[in-house]
Amino acid sequence: MSTHKFEHPLNEKTRIYLRVEALLNQMDRACQTADGIQHQLLFRSLFDLLDIFEQMQLKSELAKDIEKQRQTYRQWIDIDGVDQQMLTSLLQEIDSVHRCLLAGERFGQSLKDDRFLSTIRQRFNLPGGSCCFDLPALHYWLHLSSEQKQLDIKQWVATLQPLSDALALWLKLTRETGHFRALMAQDGFYQSDAEDANILRLSIPLEYGVYPMISGHKNRFAIKFIDFSSGKASSQNIPFDLAVCS
Amino acid sequence: MSTHKFEHPLNEKTRIYLRVEALLNQMDRACQTADGIQHQLLFRSLFDLLDIFEQMQLKSELAKDIEKQRQTYRQWIDIDGVDQQMLTSLLQEIDSVHRCLLAGERFGQSLKDDRFLSTIRQRFNLPGGSCCFDLPALHYWLHLSSEQKQLDIKQWVATLQPLSDALALWLKLTRETGHFRALMAQDGFYQSDAEDANILRLSIPLEYGVYPMISGHKNRFAIKFIDFSSGKASSQNIPFDLAVCS
Repeated sequence: MSTHKFEHPLNEKTRIYLRVEALLNQMDRACQTADGIQHQLLFRSLFDLLDIFEQMQLKSELAKDIEKQRQTYRQWIDIDGVDQQMLTSLLQEIDSVHRCLLAGERFGQSLKDDRFLSTIRQRFNLPGGSCCFDLPALHYWLHLSSEQKQLDIKQWVATLQPLSDALALWLKLTRETGHFRALMAQDGFYQSDAEDANILRLSIPLEYGVYPMISGHKNRFAIKFIDFSSGKASSQNIPFDLAVCS
Repeated sequence: MSTHKFEHPLNEKTRIYLRVEALLNQMDRACQTADGIQHQLLFRSLFDLLDIFEQMQLKSELAKDIEKQRQTYRQWIDIDGVDQQMLTSLLQEIDSVHRCLLAGERFGQSLKDDRFLSTIRQRFNLPGGSCCFDLPALHYWLHLSSEQKQLDIKQWVATLQPLSDALALWLKLTRETGHFRALMAQDGFYQSDAEDANILRLSIPLEYGVYPMISGHKNRFAIKFIDFSSGKASSQNIPFDLAVCS
């Protein structure tokens, strides 16, 4: 039975982390394909990331969160039944990611300082604003050789590597704390307590034709299933799998 | 010698027309490819078009402009030396496009009335806002079969056909009024008069490493060439081709 995977953040910071992850993924995919309209997605991802970096101190928040995970895993040193080799290797990975994160520039600083990117960023959000007359510098850049463009792209993307590594590690460890359980939403509704959770992960059978609307915070949440074709709350009993990750 | 094609509108209305043309092209290309991130470009194009439709009475402006072209070409009926067969066929095309334009709905009306599109439009411009938790309905839609998605897309795109046909015709006839002439920008600068012109079309050799910054209006314009690598005005003598289209 095919399913529909879904993730929901239970606090504002995790919401931003998941958005940044989505933007980094979108950027990576836009870089890989050679199609001429992909550059739109590449620049859009970069500029959306810069918008987010300007709204919050992402670097220090992430450093604190990685540090918290390090403390948690350190408590397991010399505990019976814990694979110490795996733990040591994980702690080394956390140390390395944390070090690179702190050593790196403020997120997006060199992208903000890039003359070409700043020139086009201002007008990129105009509706239809990527016309040649709105962004003549971009139009010229698109005529450069693929090698030159790939060099520029690699350089831009590389500046986000410490962020990308740290975020990937934090999300991986966070997601691993949750274990999927089979549940039932009676009349399309389910609610429960959560203990200081960050992310809910859901797996929903596609055959019910529903998507979830989730409200809640770190200690309590409610899931209402909406019927896609009518846009209204579903009254079906819907089986789904849920993992609560903290 | 490879060149860099460039178009510049000399009035606000033509500026909008060229932006709409670029968005329609982007939409078409995003529809054709099956890659999962293309839907971003498709929806972005649709919503940018809706933004433009809300800002101006595009339909009536375009109808007036097509009518003006019809009047111009009608003056050539029975004029010696004019290919009357070609003229008749052109006038029939103009009639047909004009009729469909007037018969059609207000641009974007059915897209605005579409429940699914309105649901996702509100949050689509959030930085990173196409995450599943921001747009659960979109996330569900992406899981539909390719056939179902293509059906939806075809239906959305079809509503824009009268606009697309009318705009393509107006721009084609406008572009055909211009004839490329070889010119030289002395010290990277060129200016000239234009008689009630709508669009400047340039063809610039890539080897000079420059792009144009153009200012002006329907009767006068100035072109300053900017060096891409320094971002400063170029002082080279730059040969280029120019067509002034009215």
